[in-house]
Amino acid sequence: MTLQNDLLLRAARGEKTERVPVWLMRQAGRILPEYRAVRERLSGFKELATTPTLAAEVTLQPVDLLGVDAAIIFSDILVIPEAMGLPYDMIEAKGPSFPKVVRSQNDIDALLGKEAAEHLEYVYEALKITKKELNGRVPLIGFAGAPWTILAYMVEGSGSKTFSKAKRMLYSEPAMAHALLRKITDATIAYLKRQVLSGADMLQLFDSWAGILSPALFEEFSLNYIREICEAIPEVPVTVFAKGANFALSQQAKLPCATLGVDWNIEPEEARRLAGTKTLQGNLDPCVLYASFKEIESHTHAMIRSFGTQRYIANLGHGVYADTNADHVRCFIDAVKSYSNKA
Amino acid sequence: MTLQNDLLLRAARGEKTERVPVWLMRQAGRILPEYRAVRERLSGFKELATTPTLAAEVTLQPVDLLGVDAAIIFSDILVIPEAMGLPYDMIEAKGPSFPKVVRSQNDIDALLGKEAAEHLEYVYEALKITKKELNGRVPLIGFAGAPWTILAYMVEGSGSKTFSKAKRMLYSEPAMAHALLRKITDATIAYLKRQVLSGADMLQLFDSWAGILSPALFEEFSLNYIREICEAIPEVPVTVFAKGANFALSQQAKLPCATLGVDWNIEPEEARRLAGTKTLQGNLDPCVLYASFKEIESHTHAMIRSFGTQRYIANLGHGVYADTNADHVRCFIDAVKSYSNKA
Repeated sequence: MTLQNDLLLRAARGEKTERVPVWLMRQAGRILPEYRAVRERLSGFKELATTPTLAAEVTLQPVDLLGVDAAIIFSDILVIPEAMGLPYDMIEAKGPSFPKVVRSQNDIDALLGKEAAEHLEYVYEALKITKKELNGRVPLIGFAGAPWTILAYMVEGSGSKTFSKAKRMLYSEPAMAHALLRKITDATIAYLKRQVLSGADMLQLFDSWAGILSPALFEEFSLNYIREICEAIPEVPVTVFAKGANFALSQQAKLPCATLGVDWNIEPEEARRLAGTKTLQGNLDPCVLYASFKEIESHTHAMIRSFGTQRYIANLGHGVYADTNADHVRCFIDAVKSYSNKA
Repeated sequence: MTLQNDLLLRAARGEKTERVPVWLMRQAGRILPEYRAVRERLSGFKELATTPTLAAEVTLQPVDLLGVDAAIIFSDILVIPEAMGLPYDMIEAKGPSFPKVVRSQNDIDALLGKEAAEHLEYVYEALKITKKELNGRVPLIGFAGAPWTILAYMVEGSGSKTFSKAKRMLYSEPAMAHALLRKITDATIAYLKRQVLSGADMLQLFDSWAGILSPALFEEFSLNYIREICEAIPEVPVTVFAKGANFALSQQAKLPCATLGVDWNIEPEEARRLAGTKTLQGNLDPCVLYASFKEIESHTHAMIRSFGTQRYIANLGHGVYADTNADHVRCFIDAVKSYSNKA
């Protein structure tokens, strides 16, 4: 099916766009009252994520209600550890928790590798329903966690400020870490290929915990596996978002991916300098959306002026915060659109 | 009194040193069984911090038991908000919590400014006792939080991944944020001057939450106030450690301070390139101390090779983690000393 709005895909491929495309990470969920209405009928996050019709419904909400230029499937990066054999609970206001964690080679041997992708039919089904309902209006984005970030949760067992248990494995048992990353990478490649077959027009890899690694650890334990995933999926444009890893932006620029996500710790001009000809995505501080409409517009326009309107996808520098007013999100989206209309 | 070991001060001033000085952030407390023995007799962290003889005792332990080249007074950056009128609780395994927070200009008006320094006699007393007990063996380091980090706690009320309540104030009420930073800065300058009068040979400013700011916010709401503090205290060398703010290292290099602390998100060569002729302090990943003795030595020696032995203070890139084995800390300290002996 031909897309009516393919701004995102053209920007990702470095083709000319008549205006800057815009979407938000975590837009599917969190900020819309319509999302919370769906969510309140259910037992929790996991029921929503694993029920394809409902996941599709909340995936479509931001397209209908906010006017974004892409849908991103409602899911979580932790479905991969679960499919590999490590189930997780999502605890309200606390985050994910794994009753069982990985601490030994035996634990790793017990996990599924690429076969894990066969246990995620609910995600593929949600993608198919969403794709059909979108009916070509905007592209559909699929996603997965980058292997290091997935390892971090599988070893740590929960969120953490330091992820020191996970990092301990990198320093004290590097061979074990590589064995686990190998399995996660195999599972992730198979999973993302199935997402493409189910209708994803573009993919994003979230390396949410890249920023706690040193440049050397990031290279050895994260970047190498991200590269492998990008190489394995030439079918659609891939965005790599290694949060906190601007220290390695020039290394990321060599990845065989279309787009790099950047957080707000870097000036757009500096990101451009380091990222070569890659399309860039980002990087408004999510807290800008707490400011007045006038301030949101002025920050957004300044950001676009700095990145330029080509090879650029407007977004926040992280997922939208849950307590953000939906009207302020709309103001951001409208500001992106109005800039381009003026220019 | 003449110091028997003034390596730290000479390195800070850019003078020649015959070997690299080494100390650890949070060395006074956390890792030593001898510290935990003192701690267990008490009601909690605050009793220890506010009882000068005990604070002095645990400040001296790492000098006696680990052989570091400096003592750092056992205290907390949050004594300043408390002295200004905002008491805090330190909750075991959870961190600081403020029953009352700052949300309005009225809240700010109710706080003490430079007079707050008069309410911190217990810190000055602990410095004096420590200074006497050190008897010139090594320099004594005093410290405070940088104003942005202190504001972050005073507005947020606790630790946070995003400090989005505090950042909201920067975007939506910048004048109020500046009024609060003004008062914190006045209190901090008066406090640090009293620390110097009480025996501190060197000072460190901890901007622990610099890394969640954009370059523009860091410049406006953090760096300007840090500069003012450095200018106000020419008596002793000052180290500025803005964790996560390597994006602004070249701006930090223009501060009128002696030394810059760096975390492990940057290669030493890159830090040298950005920091000009400033003495640098850091930057071993605290998780390296989980590795084997052999690995600790090799990482430490590689770090010193990269920074060079002059204008350099060996340290971790953050406070030592509480679950680190004291023998591994000793291995790090010995590795710094053995490198210099070999070189």
